[in-house]
Amino acid sequence: MDDAQTAPATAHGTSQQTPKHLVIVGAGFAGLSLAKALKDPNLRITIVDQRNHHLFQPLLYQVATTILPTSDVAWPIRHLFKNRRDVTTLLAQVTGIDTVARRVDLKNAAPLHYDLLALATGARHSYFGHDEWEAAAPGLKSLEDATTIRRRVLSAFEQAELSTDPAERAALLTFVVVGAGPTGVELAGIIAELAQEILPKEFRHIDTHQARVILVEAGPRVLPAFPPDMSDYVQTALTKLGVTVMTGTSVSDVSDQGVAVGTEQIPARTTIWAAGVTASPAAQWLHVPADRAGRVLVNPDLSVPGHPDIYVIGDTASVKQANGQQVPGLAPAAKQQGAFVAKVIKARLDGKTPPPAFLYRHAGNLATVGKRAAVADFGRVKLKGPLAWWLWGIAHIYFLIGTRSRLAVALSWLWSYVTGRNSARLITQRDVYSNKR
Amino acid sequence: MDDAQTAPATAHGTSQQTPKHLVIVGAGFAGLSLAKALKDPNLRITIVDQRNHHLFQPLLYQVATTILPTSDVAWPIRHLFKNRRDVTTLLAQVTGIDTVARRVDLKNAAPLHYDLLALATGARHSYFGHDEWEAAAPGLKSLEDATTIRRRVLSAFEQAELSTDPAERAALLTFVVVGAGPTGVELAGIIAELAQEILPKEFRHIDTHQARVILVEAGPRVLPAFPPDMSDYVQTALTKLGVTVMTGTSVSDVSDQGVAVGTEQIPARTTIWAAGVTASPAAQWLHVPADRAGRVLVNPDLSVPGHPDIYVIGDTASVKQANGQQVPGLAPAAKQQGAFVAKVIKARLDGKTPPPAFLYRHAGNLATVGKRAAVADFGRVKLKGPLAWWLWGIAHIYFLIGTRSRLAVALSWLWSYVTGRNSARLITQRDVYSNKR
Repeated sequence: MDDAQTAPATAHGTSQQTPKHLVIVGAGFAGLSLAKALKDPNLRITIVDQRNHHLFQPLLYQVATTILPTSDVAWPIRHLFKNRRDVTTLLAQVTGIDTVARRVDLKNAAPLHYDLLALATGARHSYFGHDEWEAAAPGLKSLEDATTIRRRVLSAFEQAELSTDPAERAALLTFVVVGAGPTGVELAGIIAELAQEILPKEFRHIDTHQARVILVEAGPRVLPAFPPDMSDYVQTALTKLGVTVMTGTSVSDVSDQGVAVGTEQIPARTTIWAAGVTASPAAQWLHVPADRAGRVLVNPDLSVPGHPDIYVIGDTASVKQANGQQVPGLAPAAKQQGAFVAKVIKARLDGKTPPPAFLYRHAGNLATVGKRAAVADFGRVKLKGPLAWWLWGIAHIYFLIGTRSRLAVALSWLWSYVTGRNSARLITQRDVYSNKR
Repeated sequence: MDDAQTAPATAHGTSQQTPKHLVIVGAGFAGLSLAKALKDPNLRITIVDQRNHHLFQPLLYQVATTILPTSDVAWPIRHLFKNRRDVTTLLAQVTGIDTVARRVDLKNAAPLHYDLLALATGARHSYFGHDEWEAAAPGLKSLEDATTIRRRVLSAFEQAELSTDPAERAALLTFVVVGAGPTGVELAGIIAELAQEILPKEFRHIDTHQARVILVEAGPRVLPAFPPDMSDYVQTALTKLGVTVMTGTSVSDVSDQGVAVGTEQIPARTTIWAAGVTASPAAQWLHVPADRAGRVLVNPDLSVPGHPDIYVIGDTASVKQANGQQVPGLAPAAKQQGAFVAKVIKARLDGKTPPPAFLYRHAGNLATVGKRAAVADFGRVKLKGPLAWWLWGIAHIYFLIGTRSRLAVALSWLWSYVTGRNSARLITQRDVYSNKR
């Protein structure tokens, strides 16, 4: 046991005896890639996260829709660094940052003193000023979100089987997904597959084929980040699966009774929010300017203006590409930013000139519609259909972290594909928002 | 969609046109084996359970101790009967039974009318009149119980890593298991293995080797259902793993600060209850006599005295063996009772003489201590050590329900055994006792 945690940091000087202390807040793709890429005898690293696991968010929608169990897409952070004696992991919630005292304040724990600080706290759903919609329309960012959505979707079918009121049954069998980016498209596609292919033989009082899945998008087409012909292809695939796609349609109200679009009220007991994200409160902690989505406006080297020892990376940072466009909130972008800051800090520790500016290399966009259709856009190369689907699967397995998870996810998918059975159809926890231990 | 659910039952007469309606409450081992063994053109079956899954309880402690993910030990009930058109599954809570009107009342759903009724509602933990201990010392009966215990155990290590108060750290690193039956022994063994072998490399401020696991048993030895030399062997194995075994020791108080045994107060933040069970409220629903543990006193054919159309099976029934001893609350006993009542009902439907009395065949007792030791008692054949351990593993894999789960559990175990990594170390849900949707 040591007391390094609470010892005053050596904020000044570069003594070879006392390593500098880098605190990384958030162990998503950005924070994790920074810690993994950075190892120096003159540096000790503390990772602080409010959860005990790193989450492979691109597959989270498959947990929400019963394809994968939670343990296939998340790993204990401290386990990932068990052989890195220079890395300490703390499960704690950050309550504020004092940039003058160089201190990170934690809830129910002693504060941390830092020499260098990296904020990689990600993003949350944005309800565009209607936070009261969240209770009725959960978004999909955490494992708890995923199991909440899974529980609500499965419970809706169960309650419909029990109900004797036709209107109530219809509302229970109506699923509204708000937002037609990749997550919204993937959620709508799998819920439709559940209703059309997986559940029909299991119910006696309801016909799950009659379930309605409605995908609502304010913009003119689904998958706005893809080329228009790919949007058309995906919209056709969704329609074939029985999904009602409503583009150019804004949601004006959400409650546990349904969703209002314009003057129309859609009675629905299950609504899922996949429409917008907002950055975590890093900008407020630092008292620095943010963009409209709450992201910190950073320097080209991802440091914070006026705070050369603080970096902001991943979905919490607002970074411009050379073409003037925003770096997208994608896993590869977050990883690249983490790796870039690792290089910057390494150069600084070595007394060398750090690389001056982060350059984003766009790898491509991928999206799937159930087991049927997929689109892959790599700029010059664009793919649709089965080849894109397999590519999507291989890419996602490749980027999973642990060897076993790759194998486990591959087996879960193969099983689900060959037998038509899903492996994670459990309704468990009843409530995830309360704060009792 | 049909209205069978609410139609008045044909309580009298044996018309070939209208099948009789058997309602089975509870889809544990007893209820499931009854439904599986019973198929007759003159019978329709409704299974009611307050959860959507059947649970393989003998492996639940491995979910609680991070070895297995939840989806390896539970399966959606309706999925198990998807090819049985005569079986309807309802996710609902029973609130009472009217034996005169032959009606099962459900919470938030229309009541069910029955011709034949089987109650297989299992057991819950018993705190011997101290229900106020439950919040501090959860038992292990449901998936939620297992994830609650997993969360508390893992969170205790996390909080100890954050704590700077030595007394607080010591209390956080003290784990008390109350009751040294197979579940208590297995829980204590795996928590000790976690602390001694799996977690040490992952923490920087605490030495998890210093964690204390205390197994408290009121009786004179661990595993009272086994022969004394096996108890000795298991107690030695536990002690080698670092578990403090306190036999002949009664718990006099439990709180979130610790456990009182006699005049001694053991400061501990994590206590797990594995001491006693009490039957579900079937006897109260029926207004019939029960034994001290709340189990319904049934006839030799497992029907309820005065209610020839109602059967009580599994942990909810109090059944005497030929030797005068109580049939034990084990999975094989529950399965045998379900299969027996299937024969009785089948004979009644066919107008034949049903078998007069249930006869329990004891298959044996098995228990393990981590990955080290195991005992198997088959009466004449008694085994200790590695052979018993492998036998235990094979037996449990064999009795798992789905093909995939057998494979999945075998892979999870093999992985955990070969690599020393556990696959289910996620802290998820925050609270499972509240009733919000």
